[in-house]
Amino acid sequence: MNAIARKGRRKAARPHEAAAERLFDVDCKLSYTLLDDTHFLFMVHALDGMDQKVREESLRITPTLEHEVHRDAVLGHRTLRLKAPAGPLTLRYRARVSLHRTPPDTRAQEMSIEALPHAVLPDLMPSRYCESDRLASVGFKMFGDLPPGHSRVQAVSDWIHEHIEYRTGFTDSSTTACDVFLQRAGVCRDFAHLGVAFCRALNIPARLAVGYARFDSPPPDFHAVFEAFLGGRWELFDPTGMTDPDDLVRIAVGRDASDVAFATLFGPVRTRLIRPEVEQVRARRARVRA
Amino acid sequence: MNAIARKGRRKAARPHEAAAERLFDVDCKLSYTLLDDTHFLFMVHALDGMDQKVREESLRITPTLEHEVHRDAVLGHRTLRLKAPAGPLTLRYRARVSLHRTPPDTRAQEMSIEALPHAVLPDLMPSRYCESDRLASVGFKMFGDLPPGHSRVQAVSDWIHEHIEYRTGFTDSSTTACDVFLQRAGVCRDFAHLGVAFCRALNIPARLAVGYARFDSPPPDFHAVFEAFLGGRWELFDPTGMTDPDDLVRIAVGRDASDVAFATLFGPVRTRLIRPEVEQVRARRARVRA
Amino acid sequence: MNAIARKGRRKAARPHEAAAERLFDVDCKLSYTLLDDTHFLFMVHALDGMDQKVREESLRITPTLEHEVHRDAVLGHRTLRLKAPAGPLTLRYRARVSLHRTPPDTRAQEMSIEALPHAVLPDLMPSRYCESDRLASVGFKMFGDLPPGHSRVQAVSDWIHEHIEYRTGFTDSSTTACDVFLQRAGVCRDFAHLGVAFCRALNIPARLAVGYARFDSPPPDFHAVFEAFLGGRWELFDPTGMTDPDDLVRIAVGRDASDVAFATLFGPVRTRLIRPEVEQVRARRARVRA
Amino acid sequence: MNAIARKGRRKAARPHEAAAERLFDVDCKLSYTLLDDTHFLFMVHALDGMDQKVREESLRITPTLEHEVHRDAVLGHRTLRLKAPAGPLTLRYRARVSLHRTPPDTRAQEMSIEALPHAVLPDLMPSRYCESDRLASVGFKMFGDLPPGHSRVQAVSDWIHEHIEYRTGFTDSSTTACDVFLQRAGVCRDFAHLGVAFCRALNIPARLAVGYARFDSPPPDFHAVFEAFLGGRWELFDPTGMTDPDDLVRIAVGRDASDVAFATLFGPVRTRLIRPEVEQVRARRARVRA
Repeated sequence: MNAIARKGRRKAARPHEAAAERLFDVDCKLSYTLLDDTHFLFMVHALDGMDQKVREESLRITPTLEHEVHRDAVLGHRTLRLKAPAGPLTLRYRARVSLHRTPPDTRAQEMSIEALPHAVLPDLMPSRYCESDRLASVGFKMFGDLPPGHSRVQAVSDWIHEHIEYRTGFTDSSTTACDVFLQRAGVCRDFAHLGVAFCRALNIPARLAVGYARFDSPPPDFHAVFEAFLGGRWELFDPTGMTDPDDLVRIAVGRDASDVAFATLFGPVRTRLIRPEVEQVRARRARVRA
Repeated sequence: MNAIARKGRRKAARPHEAAAERLFDVDCKLSYTLLDDTHFLFMVHALDGMDQKVREESLRITPTLEHEVHRDAVLGHRTLRLKAPAGPLTLRYRARVSLHRTPPDTRAQEMSIEALPHAVLPDLMPSRYCESDRLASVGFKMFGDLPPGHSRVQAVSDWIHEHIEYRTGFTDSSTTACDVFLQRAGVCRDFAHLGVAFCRALNIPARLAVGYARFDSPPPDFHAVFEAFLGGRWELFDPTGMTDPDDLVRIAVGRDASDVAFATLFGPVRTRLIRPEVEQVRARRARVRA
Repeated sequence: MNAIARKGRRKAARPHEAAAERLFDVDCKLSYTLLDDTHFLFMVHALDGMDQKVREESLRITPTLEHEVHRDAVLGHRTLRLKAPAGPLTLRYRARVSLHRTPPDTRAQEMSIEALPHAVLPDLMPSRYCESDRLASVGFKMFGDLPPGHSRVQAVSDWIHEHIEYRTGFTDSSTTACDVFLQRAGVCRDFAHLGVAFCRALNIPARLAVGYARFDSPPPDFHAVFEAFLGGRWELFDPTGMTDPDDLVRIAVGRDASDVAFATLFGPVRTRLIRPEVEQVRARRARVRA
Repeated sequence: MNAIARKGRRKAARPHEAAAERLFDVDCKLSYTLLDDTHFLFMVHALDGMDQKVREESLRITPTLEHEVHRDAVLGHRTLRLKAPAGPLTLRYRARVSLHRTPPDTRAQEMSIEALPHAVLPDLMPSRYCESDRLASVGFKMFGDLPPGHSRVQAVSDWIHEHIEYRTGFTDSSTTACDVFLQRAGVCRDFAHLGVAFCRALNIPARLAVGYARFDSPPPDFHAVFEAFLGGRWELFDPTGMTDPDDLVRIAVGRDASDVAFATLFGPVRTRLIRPEVEQVRARRARVRA
């Protein structure tokens, strides 16, 4: 396990440790050239729910356009819908978000099927990019004998970190967990999809979480990690090891990338800029603004 | 178009035609031999919602077991959860269900992306068994030039009926729409998955509907058809042509079979009997019982 | 059928028409930067066999390197093997080739399995990029009812021309006939692989032919077409419609691209130039040089 | 490594050990019911070549039918071709075969690409059931750091033995090495295909060898193992561990199962019996007959 991998592991909780509030500033710029009228679905709004709270936010769309922001009743993520004419389109979304993230419980147990809340059962099933049915056998052979619980999911995440190469331009939007397992290379969403698929293969509910995270290399992009349902709550894992998942400002969670793409485009578009940035607000500065 | 295909097309509405109430009796028997403790998720309850109403129902589980029936808050389908010990397990579910199904509106229009209600957007996205992303190009080439609307979805359904062979034992639970398109054979769920995938490729929200339907051959089994979102409501299509979708007693709707399997098993099980039967209640008999 | 497609069809033979000799000048330049010692297998030599005869040829390798040219005992194609050190590597192959190509026999019949010469039986079997086993059902459904013979293979070629989009950068070296059939886009080798696969699905021996051909757009590259075994000989078909296959100067034939790649590299290499050019020698000029 | 695996490893040679002649009796019965005229390609004849010699053999076809046996000029395997009418068809092939198999050279080295004889280059390339291109990355990651040579191929074979489950009825004739690697189950041909694919991924020429072998369980069937080209000759490996490859009476070698299927059928046929048996002739009995 190298230095990067350690970053990917969450820092374990000390007993009864209170989740400290931490503040993050998101600044996301997206820029496109539309070759024709195009309908967009964007997921760029920070999640206002779970262990996150949006303190302030602003959205600027250029040119000025009618748009609609829809909030999912169950999971809380927001989808921005708009139709834009041919020509340039620029979005800037800024937010200050506070995280009250409980440290990971490394002793968290897997739950038996009958104990799982009904709401998480869909997260046991195979999905477009996480064919847990096809990976059931190999997942079980590779991880089935490990002691169940948080450490087993950590082993899944560590295995992915060690055996899958981070490589841009190798996979695309139709790449699935099976492809990644075979090709042994991909980007953050591919790593996370494989983690989700292996967890489901082990009968552990799992899902994709996407959001804002800071990493030095490669250049800024939206980040994807995975969540496993352990001990009655969702625990975060980053198999790329590029971030500490405690610092992820979630945008959305979903079964896989088909649920939570940051942009879905219905029209011919050239992408010019994707720059989702996030920075933790240092204590003093935060205090001043509070 | 042969005789069977005509059955698969829904009878068009006359203007202002009232949806007549019709009654159906469901009688579903399932029988298994469990080789070990096994957790089950069953979807056998008739949907009590949309254009259906459950008038009476009973569920008998042998041996007598604790169980739980969970109703989905949004879509209304019910999931029966139970854990059973090694040995025989038998289920019998009986219900009388009334359908107030509005006749199909063959002039229903496709809706533009921006006009779609937010709730149906997930039904535009690719899913485990309906890789509409991979079939986008071919779907558009095959059906993209047809006039949009109900007739285009009917053309999709007709094409599937004419080009895919109904054949049991050829596909399995991991078969996807792409496989079916290549192999040109499958069962009702495969037909429906391909219909869903082509609709989504055309930017028409579509989903799988499973339930009780009567057909002479092959032997009784759960049925699957697909629904397309046209003119603001869900229209039913049966590309197998084996049933009139107006007679389908829905159990559930979902993105694909990963959402709405009639039985999901977590344990080693031998299936002994699957006999989901349904019969329309003739008018006189219905009156007597009412 | 558009103008391009007509080009792709071979001009039919008049009865007893003699195959005229025609001369072609090949001028092929390849240039690479090797990041380390690299072993190469090149197939750039014009085939000296079948209906082709190499009149003159020269090969210049820069830097000067030991190399070996191996001639296949059965099919006659040549493979250039060499090992080059890190740094630049340039190849220039020039040849004058005469073609005595018999015009296509559009009345050629398919042969029954028992009448096929033993040597062509391998060309009935599925191969890496031509999964005729997986396409058997669809191939038979699409073309099985057509009258057998040359016209049926032409129908396969025409179907590909009409339904597959020529698009560079969409497929890669692992793309197969099934992928092309699903994605409906590719380059010449993808078109040819699909033609091969459909023919084999119909029990017609078929193989890939690669070589030098002239087309205006896209920029110069090696070309691939397919050959079907009809009436006891191999007939050429170009489903891209970009060339008249009568003008193809063959380099090699094989079961698919895994047999006849123009370059196979065992090492880290940057490709700088691929410019395989060919030109028919006009009568007067040819006479002067002869 | 369990007892079975040890059987799968070949017994290493002592220095200068002479290959002893051993005799095997083959008795192969095949029986079919043809629903229509059917053309067959059979590969049942013991290979008369390499380290094998056919001493006596007989072939009985019932009903009596015209047939043709073709011997491959390069590899020496024989193909029986016949066309049979609707009704029963029975084959019985018997042979006494002597093997002069040189014990494996466990110190055999891998050869550099430039040192490989031209004839084995095709065995470096991906084939229908051995997609070594898609498995290149994972093969290299798994085995790339091991010391090259016989022990590395043995490590590949051992890995397959330990991680792939022998299971009939799980795979079919279109299952490839990638499928097997994902699903972790299959039969002898699947094991061998994966071995071939991994070797090619490591730039070691490899091919499938099929033939007669004795194993207690499962019931008699044709066997498949793989051969890797090491130190200038082909070494046998049986990743199923069910046989000692030294005892394999080869029928044929080829790139994969598409080259060497024991039966290829062009017609509707019901298989009634496949019983390829082989037995080593004990010394005394052999001496008497010699």
